Amino acid sequence: MKFGVIGAGIVRQILAATLARTEPGIYGNPPLRQWSEQHPQIQVDTFAHTAAHGEILLNATAGGVSVEALQTIGADLLNGKILIDVVQPSSGMPPSLMVVNTDSLGEQIQRTFPQVKVVKSLNSRSLHIMVNPRQVADGDHHVFVCGNDAEAKTQVIELLTREFGWKHVIDLGDITAARGTEMILPLWLRLSDTLQTPMFNFKIVQ
Amino acid sequence: MKFGVIGAGIVRQILAATLARTEPGIYGNPPLRQWSEQHPQIQVDTFAHTAAHGEILLNATAGGVSVEALQTIGADLLNGKILIDVVQPSSGMPPSLMVVNTDSLGEQIQRTFPQVKVVKSLNSRSLHIMVNPRQVADGDHHVFVCGNDAEAKTQVIELLTREFGWKHVIDLGDITAARGTEMILPLWLRLSDTLQTPMFNFKIVQ
Repeated sequence: MKFGVIGAGIVRQILAATLARTEPGIYGNPPLRQWSEQHPQIQVDTFAHTAAHGEILLNATAGGVSVEALQTIGADLLNGKILIDVVQPSSGMPPSLMVVNTDSLGEQIQRTFPQVKVVKSLNSRSLHIMVNPRQVADGDHHVFVCGNDAEAKTQVIELLTREFGWKHVIDLGDITAARGTEMILPLWLRLSDTLQTPMFNFKIVQ
Repeated sequence: MKFGVIGAGIVRQILAATLARTEPGIYGNPPLRQWSEQHPQIQVDTFAHTAAHGEILLNATAGGVSVEALQTIGADLLNGKILIDVVQPSSGMPPSLMVVNTDSLGEQIQRTFPQVKVVKSLNSRSLHIMVNPRQVADGDHHVFVCGNDAEAKTQVIELLTREFGWKHVIDLGDITAARGTEMILPLWLRLSDTLQTPMFNFKIVQ
């Protein structure tokens, strides 16, 4: 399986490095990384190259311009693929959410690209916990997935457990559940301030 | 300490019953309950009576009309008191939040009544877990408090631990943290649908 991590920032870098960390040759990331290093200035081409290359794509673009960034790639390169949207639709400092309550970035992307299998996951937590959940409480906490395509979610759950080491994944249903997972960002930020660390996560206890 | 639970619905009933459950005479709730039972139709008078009676007040009014309900009581009866705001500012089914992101109901109440010591707490969880957290995982999960008055928060934390049995309370800082705790409602609702039970809560793991 070839992964493509779309984005320009630290989130993309760490996700890509994680997906390449065990067997670089298998996942195809090193060629992409080499290409990126050779063409650091051509960001739009990087996005398109990444999208064409990957079989499962991860959206790690900036929250404020995520839909627009994906539009520069175009539906032709994205259609039919799984797109894991890890983005928080926030901007500013302290971050303020740009879409809430009756809509979400996950839904906006799905509406913009109806033939892409959008799965919202991994958002609203530390980047380091995204890719290495066992750093905290030996992984005894939760990550959520939601999306309209059941088979896509099955593949994403397999990715989360096998590649990233997540022990507990909760499938929240269709893509509208992204409202809920995106809206926990303000609590996450305040907790991070209070605990003075980003190294925590939510566990659902019953 | 006399408590007053302001509201007309099930939340008020269960909170009031909990605060009265061990030693009814101590907390003063039975007289209020008797009075309420004798005057079920006079809701505004009930609110005012409750506010005058209680030393620590709990706001359990309907989310959509919470500020207005408190205004019917008036600042004179509320000023100087601690008001624990447990309300979700939501309406409709499925519930949609009426204030999000850059404001919160907790802040609206604090702005409307600057001399009331508003502490947001207990919202965004099952009513049954609010008052009996040890029903789930023996209480090994979290409740949050936030507010501008440190002494008021200390008293509320004592109430939560002593009267309700909460083991883990996190003080998130000033009342603006209510944005975060109110905005986890959509995730809570979706989790409740997914898990097919309201008997769960969030634990913060580090």
